[in-house]
Amino acid sequence: MIKGPVTPIPCETFDAVFDSVESGYARLGVIPIENSLIGSIHRNYDLLLERELKVIGESQMRIVHSLIVPPGVSLRDIRQVYSHPAALDQCRRFFQKHPAMRPISYYDTAGAVRLLAESSPRDAAAIASPYAAELYRMKQARKSIEDTKSNFTRFLLLSRRAAAFTGQAKTSIVFSLKHEPGSLFKALSVFALRDIDLTKIESRPLRKKAWEYYFYLDLAGATRESRVHHALNHLQEITHFVKVLGTYPMSVNGG
Amino acid sequence: MIKGPVTPIPCETFDAVFDSVESGYARLGVIPIENSLIGSIHRNYDLLLERELKVIGESQMRIVHSLIVPPGVSLRDIRQVYSHPAALDQCRRFFQKHPAMRPISYYDTAGAVRLLAESSPRDAAAIASPYAAELYRMKQARKSIEDTKSNFTRFLLLSRRAAAFTGQAKTSIVFSLKHEPGSLFKALSVFALRDIDLTKIESRPLRKKAWEYYFYLDLAGATRESRVHHALNHLQEITHFVKVLGTYPMSVNGG
Repeated sequence: MIKGPVTPIPCETFDAVFDSVESGYARLGVIPIENSLIGSIHRNYDLLLERELKVIGESQMRIVHSLIVPPGVSLRDIRQVYSHPAALDQCRRFFQKHPAMRPISYYDTAGAVRLLAESSPRDAAAIASPYAAELYRMKQARKSIEDTKSNFTRFLLLSRRAAAFTGQAKTSIVFSLKHEPGSLFKALSVFALRDIDLTKIESRPLRKKAWEYYFYLDLAGATRESRVHHALNHLQEITHFVKVLGTYPMSVNGG
Repeated sequence: MIKGPVTPIPCETFDAVFDSVESGYARLGVIPIENSLIGSIHRNYDLLLERELKVIGESQMRIVHSLIVPPGVSLRDIRQVYSHPAALDQCRRFFQKHPAMRPISYYDTAGAVRLLAESSPRDAAAIASPYAAELYRMKQARKSIEDTKSNFTRFLLLSRRAAAFTGQAKTSIVFSLKHEPGSLFKALSVFALRDIDLTKIESRPLRKKAWEYYFYLDLAGATRESRVHHALNHLQEITHFVKVLGTYPMSVNGG
């Protein structure tokens, strides 16, 4: 889908990722959408609802956190450890074992490594991926210091336009329902009656309208397939609101 | 449900909350289970599955973050701000406006206020609830600095034994399903056929067994009601695994 070299553009916020792609400054955007430990990232679902970008791909990565230091710095000199708050939180056991090291929040894991590369402190480290260590020519003082190894994040690839592809497809939608007994059951019947397989469903209460819910749903199939097309029309008949976030190639491990 | 004065016992980890209640050291435990911004807290669902504690209550709170300082410390002196990583992350705009303040991770929001109370630094603040400021006799230098006001956390009350109560009930269950088209629809039919209202549903892929899912489900009703009892028996017929986490009084705003 992406040909040729890619230049990554770091963004401080998820909003900034959407802004960059919408304005044309970036051709594509990458956002995390769910993590096996912390669940769905609702802020990004909100942005997918508010904005008009299309999901054109997904990818799942195991998250590995390494303790990264400038060359020549040894473990016993480290007093400060910079990283994204979520990464710091996922390495609690490491900090319990090393009470002399103080975790300091930074907006981005890779950004924390760049900070080390630029300022070369003698008493600081960062927590980030092994790739970030390589990119900024820093050293991994400790590898894989995360508390739990079953830490996976699913990322979505965003574009201004839907992209053509072949092979097994996945479609992500959001819809809303009045909170009535059986309303979800009715909504899911439009997929069950057409043997359409669901790979994710999640309810999210709408704070502004009590007793109404958003549902996030991923299904196996493309909107161009007639059974999916019919199912979505049928869903529109029985719900208030349906938005297709995108149809994209299913990742082998992106379930 | 709780009579007389309550002595809170802070715990560094969610595991420690379960340990304290199981061992009898604490009579009850309180854990966060979902947040309107970050979603379900899977680690606590895992602990509810692994351990034998019962959910006996729920409560929903709006999360308010204040910048808290020792008396006499002014905003312009602050260089370090201690709090839980999630709280620091929810006050990004405040840190963007105050670049001289460095966010530093601490295991607990209220614990960060206690740290200030114990060491009285002249250049440090904490981010925590207004209640924590009051408890440790510290000052709120800025109130409600969180990026978004629609930040709610639902908490569960845990006990070794189920508790009797009257009024509207809610029941939380976890069940697992093989990943086959229509399997979720069949599972939900056991509730729809009995007009049982669902207030939460969420799928979670099981990493260890590809193509199997856990579902978190909350329903309106108590396990002692015959229609709920029959629905759960029916669910057991068609699924691999069902665990009732608890039946408890539905909070007015705990949807």
